[in-house]
Amino acid sequence: MSQKPSLHTVLSPQLLHLYNCNNATVVIIDVFRATSTIATALHNGAARVIPVDAVDKCIEIGKQVNGITAGERDGKIIEGLQYGNSPAEYPRSFIEGKTLVLTTTNGTKLLHMALAAGASEVVTGSFPNLSAVCNFLVQQKKEVILGCSAWKDRFNLEDTLFAGAVIHQIKEHFTIHCDSSLMAEQIYLLHKNDMFTHIRQLTHWHRLAKFGLEKDLEYCVTIDVANVLPRFKNGALLAN
Amino acid sequence: MSQKPSLHTVLSPQLLHLYNCNNATVVIIDVFRATSTIATALHNGAARVIPVDAVDKCIEIGKQVNGITAGERDGKIIEGLQYGNSPAEYPRSFIEGKTLVLTTTNGTKLLHMALAAGASEVVTGSFPNLSAVCNFLVQQKKEVILGCSAWKDRFNLEDTLFAGAVIHQIKEHFTIHCDSSLMAEQIYLLHKNDMFTHIRQLTHWHRLAKFGLEKDLEYCVTIDVANVLPRFKNGALLAN
Repeated sequence: MSQKPSLHTVLSPQLLHLYNCNNATVVIIDVFRATSTIATALHNGAARVIPVDAVDKCIEIGKQVNGITAGERDGKIIEGLQYGNSPAEYPRSFIEGKTLVLTTTNGTKLLHMALAAGASEVVTGSFPNLSAVCNFLVQQKKEVILGCSAWKDRFNLEDTLFAGAVIHQIKEHFTIHCDSSLMAEQIYLLHKNDMFTHIRQLTHWHRLAKFGLEKDLEYCVTIDVANVLPRFKNGALLAN
Repeated sequence: MSQKPSLHTVLSPQLLHLYNCNNATVVIIDVFRATSTIATALHNGAARVIPVDAVDKCIEIGKQVNGITAGERDGKIIEGLQYGNSPAEYPRSFIEGKTLVLTTTNGTKLLHMALAAGASEVVTGSFPNLSAVCNFLVQQKKEVILGCSAWKDRFNLEDTLFAGAVIHQIKEHFTIHCDSSLMAEQIYLLHKNDMFTHIRQLTHWHRLAKFGLEKDLEYCVTIDVANVLPRFKNGALLAN
């Protein structure tokens, strides 16, 4: 019987260096809302999504690739960009065939850290593409790091809930000696049937709901409504 | 109505710098087993406990203060030291009136980080002294950081469970906008009635149980059996 590959959950970018990313598949998780929006745009036919960590880069790359520039601060579109961070802004009628240049802070930082740490594959995960992520990880049979983007490096529950959902689906295929993963699955099982209620307690909910984003956040914890696998290749995320 | 002080939970020493320790009370948590042993030794009449992070320092300070030197690696007393890390080694008949110089890695590191970050008060917490810690925090009416020592900076569940137990008891007295704290309380409530069973799933259990430490670990999740408050003053922890 062959040894099952390991799976670990990393609760903050600040903890990534404690884990061996070399040759691993790293799943970047940024549930509210970057990775949910990425899955949605690609599911609706976007040619690719280029994640960037700064507004000036977003504008520059947007011009180079003739792409749609997007990014928010405090619930409003950032000056100089065209669209926001909401998955609802990217229906097929609008985004199909286009390149989205998306400004994210927490998720993009983690993505570049994972590449620098030697990850052989980087994909993005969110509830809207849960099954696509799970199927890919099981099929790859490689070591897995579930990387929570967190909020300015502080632990957050929504990314942890998604890590727990993945673990619950695929744990039989992996060796898991990791308290973060045990915790994530327990928290997910505790709330999987009251997700819409539970997210109203989270610190990030309080940050975003005041901008009228309740529907957005509910969408972001809805399973498989944009079930595509965003894989990072040559600087962009593409639907698998 | 006056504003309630804030309470945050820090899941790893690597995350401490993200929080404001200045003028806060920091609770150092190292459930398996340093802070459980510290509470027990002080409860049983030890004059003080000097926590050190290295074996050579332990030996040197042990000589200077005519203290008992203690520390373990892989379930065995470290060569050159006299006793181990088990709370069971420090009954009143042995430890009363003596100074214990205890080698710990995770907990001592966090303690010194908290002092360097400007904590006005550092105490240690564990299930054996849960109520003493809670009473002190409520009475102080100051900002609180619950600092989990973790395992080589990786998140662990046993320290999180203790943080959750504290939060559950005292949350009415504090303002808590902190997903780590929400999570910790949820995990504690999930397991408070099956603690002895639950700890058998933890990664640290698997590390320590093979050395025959099951009874020790069960003691370390037993509430208020050494209900004293270890406060750090002038390089040592003393019973309040």
